[in-house]
Amino acid sequence: MMLGVYASAAAEVLATVSSPNRAINVAVQLADDGRLAYEIQRNGKPLIATSRLGFLLANAPQMDNGFTLASQAVSEHDDTWEQPWGERRYVRNHYKELRLELVQKALDNRRMALVFRVFDDGVGFRYEFPEQAQLPETRISDELTEFVVAPPAYAWWQQAGEQAALEYAIKKSPLSEVGMANTPLTIRTKDGTHIAFHEAALVDYASMWLRKVEGQKLRAHLTPSAFGPAVQRRGAFTTPWRTMQIADNAAGLYMSDLVLNLNEPNKLGDVTWVHPSKFVGVWWEMHLEKSTWGSGARHGATTANAKRYIDFAAQNGFRGVLVEGWNLGWDGNWSGSGSAFSFTEAYPDFDLAGVSAYAQQKGVRLIGHHETGGNIARYEEQMDAGYQLYAKLGVDSIKSGYVTDAGAALFPGADGAVHFGYTDSQEGSRHYLKAVTEAARYKLAIDTHEPIKDTGLRRTYPNWISREGARGMEYNAWGSPINSVDHEVNLVFTRMLSGPMDYTPGILSLEGVKGRPINSTQAKQLASFVVIYSPVVMAADLIENYEKYPGPFKFIKDVPTDWSDTRVLHGELGEYATIARKDRRSDDWYVGSVTDGNARVLSLPLTFLDPGKRYVAEIYRDGDHADYRTIRRFDIVIEKKNVTSKTVLQLKLAPGGGQAIRFTSQ
Amino acid sequence: MMLGVYASAAAEVLATVSSPNRAINVAVQLADDGRLAYEIQRNGKPLIATSRLGFLLANAPQMDNGFTLASQAVSEHDDTWEQPWGERRYVRNHYKELRLELVQKALDNRRMALVFRVFDDGVGFRYEFPEQAQLPETRISDELTEFVVAPPAYAWWQQAGEQAALEYAIKKSPLSEVGMANTPLTIRTKDGTHIAFHEAALVDYASMWLRKVEGQKLRAHLTPSAFGPAVQRRGAFTTPWRTMQIADNAAGLYMSDLVLNLNEPNKLGDVTWVHPSKFVGVWWEMHLEKSTWGSGARHGATTANAKRYIDFAAQNGFRGVLVEGWNLGWDGNWSGSGSAFSFTEAYPDFDLAGVSAYAQQKGVRLIGHHETGGNIARYEEQMDAGYQLYAKLGVDSIKSGYVTDAGAALFPGADGAVHFGYTDSQEGSRHYLKAVTEAARYKLAIDTHEPIKDTGLRRTYPNWISREGARGMEYNAWGSPINSVDHEVNLVFTRMLSGPMDYTPGILSLEGVKGRPINSTQAKQLASFVVIYSPVVMAADLIENYEKYPGPFKFIKDVPTDWSDTRVLHGELGEYATIARKDRRSDDWYVGSVTDGNARVLSLPLTFLDPGKRYVAEIYRDGDHADYRTIRRFDIVIEKKNVTSKTVLQLKLAPGGGQAIRFTSQ
Repeated sequence: MMLGVYASAAAEVLATVSSPNRAINVAVQLADDGRLAYEIQRNGKPLIATSRLGFLLANAPQMDNGFTLASQAVSEHDDTWEQPWGERRYVRNHYKELRLELVQKALDNRRMALVFRVFDDGVGFRYEFPEQAQLPETRISDELTEFVVAPPAYAWWQQAGEQAALEYAIKKSPLSEVGMANTPLTIRTKDGTHIAFHEAALVDYASMWLRKVEGQKLRAHLTPSAFGPAVQRRGAFTTPWRTMQIADNAAGLYMSDLVLNLNEPNKLGDVTWVHPSKFVGVWWEMHLEKSTWGSGARHGATTANAKRYIDFAAQNGFRGVLVEGWNLGWDGNWSGSGSAFSFTEAYPDFDLAGVSAYAQQKGVRLIGHHETGGNIARYEEQMDAGYQLYAKLGVDSIKSGYVTDAGAALFPGADGAVHFGYTDSQEGSRHYLKAVTEAARYKLAIDTHEPIKDTGLRRTYPNWISREGARGMEYNAWGSPINSVDHEVNLVFTRMLSGPMDYTPGILSLEGVKGRPINSTQAKQLASFVVIYSPVVMAADLIENYEKYPGPFKFIKDVPTDWSDTRVLHGELGEYATIARKDRRSDDWYVGSVTDGNARVLSLPLTFLDPGKRYVAEIYRDGDHADYRTIRRFDIVIEKKNVTSKTVLQLKLAPGGGQAIRFTSQ
Repeated sequence: MMLGVYASAAAEVLATVSSPNRAINVAVQLADDGRLAYEIQRNGKPLIATSRLGFLLANAPQMDNGFTLASQAVSEHDDTWEQPWGERRYVRNHYKELRLELVQKALDNRRMALVFRVFDDGVGFRYEFPEQAQLPETRISDELTEFVVAPPAYAWWQQAGEQAALEYAIKKSPLSEVGMANTPLTIRTKDGTHIAFHEAALVDYASMWLRKVEGQKLRAHLTPSAFGPAVQRRGAFTTPWRTMQIADNAAGLYMSDLVLNLNEPNKLGDVTWVHPSKFVGVWWEMHLEKSTWGSGARHGATTANAKRYIDFAAQNGFRGVLVEGWNLGWDGNWSGSGSAFSFTEAYPDFDLAGVSAYAQQKGVRLIGHHETGGNIARYEEQMDAGYQLYAKLGVDSIKSGYVTDAGAALFPGADGAVHFGYTDSQEGSRHYLKAVTEAARYKLAIDTHEPIKDTGLRRTYPNWISREGARGMEYNAWGSPINSVDHEVNLVFTRMLSGPMDYTPGILSLEGVKGRPINSTQAKQLASFVVIYSPVVMAADLIENYEKYPGPFKFIKDVPTDWSDTRVLHGELGEYATIARKDRRSDDWYVGSVTDGNARVLSLPLTFLDPGKRYVAEIYRDGDHADYRTIRRFDIVIEKKNVTSKTVLQLKLAPGGGQAIRFTSQ
């Protein structure tokens, strides 16, 4: 006999709240036995069926039944805020909020609040734990939050709970066949409604994975901790927001700012020291096995090689140069507990101060690099010294790395003991954010590789400039296996919903190690600079390859990385995506369009251009016979056209192809 | 970048081992990077594709790569052992064993062994951790063991990781739609091969759930602990056996003794004090809300009511009488941390000593009852006193209960703090076994309700006489909802593969609270006594109902609970099952046959009877118009036939019906 099953299921609706446009309705239910649940309708049809809420605690009776309502309040909020950098300059934040104060009377009036914010483009909700004597410390063993999808749906998802963290290929399957997924998890229901399940403002809490229970019922599964229950907090705290972006189509999902809106405003104040920009560097050559991270005859991070990249950057207008492998620790086993990186000492063949000075003299900035090997304990000991050194040398951004095996990083324990845990864990959320807030003290921007997933914290901490957090271009070097031809179009409506990605596009050579071709045309490489958003973008290919292809390279030089507006013009999950973005510093627009393995002709009305203005369109399109499967993957046509907002272009995309366009205001 | 993904996948076969009949072949692989995997073929066809092995540790680098082989050995074992009680008296234990000693050289020669035992009816394997200075304590955060099913398959499964622990309805779905399942998880592949995934000898370790990763890849998911990583052990230890019972059909699965064979032999010595037997008692009336567990005017556990059941038991040959609710603590909130049970103090209206003495005087034994409300901390304080009291009163078996809400029991912590954890956790495995071994000191048998799942430990501790661990008859009282018509046939080839179940059959009234009918005919109630095995069986209905139906009640009086042999004569997962069992104390055979909602006619050749002997078959069959959906569910025909081993009977089963037969040797 189990009481939870014995309990009657009769429930009453406790409260309801609608989106400002009334299309989305949330109802919160309270069952006879005081269990909480919610459901969501959209346009009068069930979208999320009755879904449970609550927690199992490790240090107190469960927080999922015996609730009564103490108070409820509905309010409306509507403002517009400005991003220091981003896909668009102004973001409207318009929602209705339902706040329910709940009490567990049988547990000495233990309290919890449940807050729903309902936007026209989706729903977010979170739990709030007040300071209370009945629960001075909250140890959460399990979050019971469910998401029961009512209509039949397909899912685009990435597995969770395994070693590669956020670097699995994105799969499509019926939602009922999802196992354990990371978020964002995107679904398309039978009637075409799109939902992206994710979370916002993941701070000092375990990442939420989504576990399929049965049918189309997903449940929160908190990333385990190496230190005990998944979440341990003292005093008052709030959970991250559990978010559902909801739209009529894939384009609508990408246009949603819901996740950013549910994050706290900028806490750093003036962040003009954060510089959206492009960079090149000593990186792809190691992936191609042309040089090594480790020391020796083939060491990539030499003073001479760095200067070669600095010269190239200066010549071509790149602000940054990344040099990986300059510091001691890359020889032998540099991952996990074996890692012995120094964050201040250079190999003898690399003159850090000299290279930094040389760069600045050329108007270029060195981009710092901190590879931790996942040994967070060791990194936290040296982080401050590493930041100080860079700040002293005029470096203003750092790419950090957490290359681990098995997805288990080494966290510092109070007892000095070894603690291997998931980078997605509560301790992971603490470390990654600490690395960012500490960096802010030195006016350093952080671009995290092997990160905890993005939940929109760039709004609050705008020096968290980018992350990896998905299969990047590097897989095309290694071939283990290379990224599929639909990888970019999968990313746009899944991973990219969470925030910027340092994808390292622009491999004009279209090849990995041993000349193995990648699943792309040259035009698609250019289009990726627009489609895959990041304020910091590495043009990743070797200098000699950019010198070999000066035509397409011009687009890479021209394209900015900071935007005043963004519009998704076409998009289908896993098939194609066309995005237009307006340069933050000029009236120029840029368009990128990418397709999967299928050739397509897409009609592109230029209605996004300013009416009445004349533009020159510099078009970088697939050649007529371009095809990612043949040597014709290099076929690219570069042409100019005079256009206005009334022009309709035809985008002809080759199999595995793309198109990039710069619209220069005349 | 994640190293695990970057790693090359080239692998060599390290070792192979076959079943004694050579039908099953296991190959263990070692990849270039020292990762371990196994695969299984049956009759030359892939059954389990390459499946990973290993662990993530919380206090040391992961134990899943960098292995080299130190030694390997193959041996064969064949003996037959005798069960003190069971489905059959003699069990053959015939397997080939492959033992691999493995070393992680880069981790200071850290060692681990991998042991496979391959039987004609399946495979078991386990990991062995030696005592070693490199790993004095092993803290396992994640077991990586995979089971990748090669051919397409359907699964019969029960969800795990949720509040109702082992009491979910059993579902059928494509294996690809399994979320997180408890074990046994039974599958049928496209070519008809049946596999039951389970574990054997779960001792001081977390229960294994099976999580779907993608497609048909299942992975071990260790039940979380309230105290830190899922498993924490000092010194040398072995994991439970990961088992795959493999057969050509469902009947073959049930005939397999693989799980018992992988448990250690009896550690208790003489266990003649363990008494397989039937009982009645003060129980169903509370579920029907005719009386209460708590005190007051409607208290069920009064001296008078107990004596009424004792008289009935004595009159009808039942050895035991269970009385629930006799002890203090049933008033108010008696579950979880609110539970305040006394295990020694009776309510004033119940004379424990007097009732015990009265029972013994009538040749009947009181069955002890320890409801803990899941408050294991409180129970462990009083357990010894509770056992002592019962032993003093001549009680020789105890039904224990762990009714919790949310599946979270309260475990004692070293620090005196509150620790809510899963009953399936490592701490759960310790407590449940401790309750049994401590009981053995008092010669008490334990019948655990809301148990940790059965993994065959009855072989080692034969006083662990039965468990609940699935939806029992009680759901038919509550209606939340009642058990489906195919529940019994689902149980036989899933839950019942793990061991005995205290199912409490025999509800001849065929109704729950408010007269709500249950999904059964009367004949099916009788058949369940044979089909659902338990050495201790409660005839659960009210005395007045047995008095009302003396015809069918005769079978309940006659049927034994201990067997010298068992044969599954028919069986299809979720459809029907016919089982013949031979009485341990006579030459009589009993047959039970149950069906789902479909009527069936099954041919039953009596070849299992001793050739040359004559038998009288007392047949309890569904009436010609019997149907569980109508009032004709009560239609039962009782008739006698003279038969021999050459007779072929036709079993005509009504929708939701069954048939029970006693064959008395003449």
